[in-house]
Amino acid sequence: MGFVEDTRVERVADGRWSTTIAPGWDIGGNANGGYLLAVVGRALAEAAERPDPVTLTAHFLRPGKPGPAAIVAERVKAGRRFATVAGRLESDGGAIVQALATFGDLASADPGPERVSASPPDLPPPDACPRNAADDALAKSFMHQVDLRLHPDDVGFRRGAPSGEPRVRGWFRFADDAPIDTLALLLAVDAFPPTIFNARLPVGWVPTLELTAHVRARPEPGWLRCAFATRFVTGGFLEEDGELWDERGRLVAQSRQLALVPRARAAGA
Amino acid sequence: MGFVEDTRVERVADGRWSTTIAPGWDIGGNANGGYLLAVVGRALAEAAERPDPVTLTAHFLRPGKPGPAAIVAERVKAGRRFATVAGRLESDGGAIVQALATFGDLASADPGPERVSASPPDLPPPDACPRNAADDALAKSFMHQVDLRLHPDDVGFRRGAPSGEPRVRGWFRFADDAPIDTLALLLAVDAFPPTIFNARLPVGWVPTLELTAHVRARPEPGWLRCAFATRFVTGGFLEEDGELWDERGRLVAQSRQLALVPRARAAGA
Repeated sequence: MGFVEDTRVERVADGRWSTTIAPGWDIGGNANGGYLLAVVGRALAEAAERPDPVTLTAHFLRPGKPGPAAIVAERVKAGRRFATVAGRLESDGGAIVQALATFGDLASADPGPERVSASPPDLPPPDACPRNAADDALAKSFMHQVDLRLHPDDVGFRRGAPSGEPRVRGWFRFADDAPIDTLALLLAVDAFPPTIFNARLPVGWVPTLELTAHVRARPEPGWLRCAFATRFVTGGFLEEDGELWDERGRLVAQSRQLALVPRARAAGA
Repeated sequence: MGFVEDTRVERVADGRWSTTIAPGWDIGGNANGGYLLAVVGRALAEAAERPDPVTLTAHFLRPGKPGPAAIVAERVKAGRRFATVAGRLESDGGAIVQALATFGDLASADPGPERVSASPPDLPPPDACPRNAADDALAKSFMHQVDLRLHPDDVGFRRGAPSGEPRVRGWFRFADDAPIDTLALLLAVDAFPPTIFNARLPVGWVPTLELTAHVRARPEPGWLRCAFATRFVTGGFLEEDGELWDERGRLVAQSRQLALVPRARAAGA
């Protein structure tokens, strides 16, 4: 199956959709967070009656296991250009993701004045960047869905030699080269390995509390250039800021997530 | 009155609070967005039964006019350390702010490893920074509640000479020097003039669609050092990223908002 099929939702009642958390998008048995965002986003887009998630926030409440699930959503306000919706992905086990989003139609956007003081990350061509973790026992199934090519300077963590910079840069596309629409951008903002893996800190895993994505434009066909970085590991939290650019060099999405910094698995570290 | 009194909420039923959008916190008749966040935040904190808004997202649906209002809120999940709540500020006129937040107790946080690759903004002392807009006809009442001292390099927009950099840096405290708790940080992240006023772009006002604040720590008493910047004005949108530091040089909050870039008031600009 592919991204569109595996994120399908079906309206079963007013404000209620059924779906299936598909197998094959998990990391160690739990569905990837970005995949869950895309599933929720697809139902919220229907609730909003607008195609593009201009800004979407999700709070992650518990892991999503493959199997039947439902989305409940409410349209809070519909204006001329935008509609705001609130909703939740849940299964028999309880609420998985709570979301709040404003949707619009980016095809009809009136750009107005533009000013950009940033550049896409400087990446070697995809073929010169190692593919991420297709052989990783935990991430294997997810990494067969997406094709991530990491900047050679940012892959040291895989062999126990983190770069020391909490940063991950790379290329993103679907493994089957399916088109990347604005719902797929919700997946892409949470598809890369955690930046913190490249810091020299005693940190094991980083559960995401919250992720907000701003979608600025519909991507042109082709690879996305992506960069994720962390500047503040403080107070038991870290943020991870993402930028996604399309092949025409246009920013298509920004993301920021707040994650917990758990102690390392080693006792007393 | 002061911040605490003017953001008071009263639980009137299960999941429902009454409040008053107080006069004196408005800009041109509409309550400041950060003030509304603090009002909503206070009710959500009660719903969460946790004091600190670790991450709070608000979508701004319509202006808040002074007068009676209500907050409806639902606790979506309560875990050991955090509780996630969703809620809405509304008045007779309809929904004003829709919010989603996760609360915790930052006093009991286990910091774990720390790593910061950023510094507080370099600001002249408060007395060497001009106070913002106490004489501005529109912002006058709000600017009597807060004491903003802007970096001298960032005030040019006031006299029609924007710096050219979409950036605003300055000091924040309450005019009555009331303590700044973590709910007050929600006000502080949206108290400064828009960064875009310092860009040389034909932009009049910038309505905020969405704002997310991450509260990292309870501030020490004293001034906050604040910095707001915009890197992407594209597709009719701009983001504004904020960092707030306390007097001990500790990051206490990060914020990002997504705002619309309306065309200038001049026709056909």
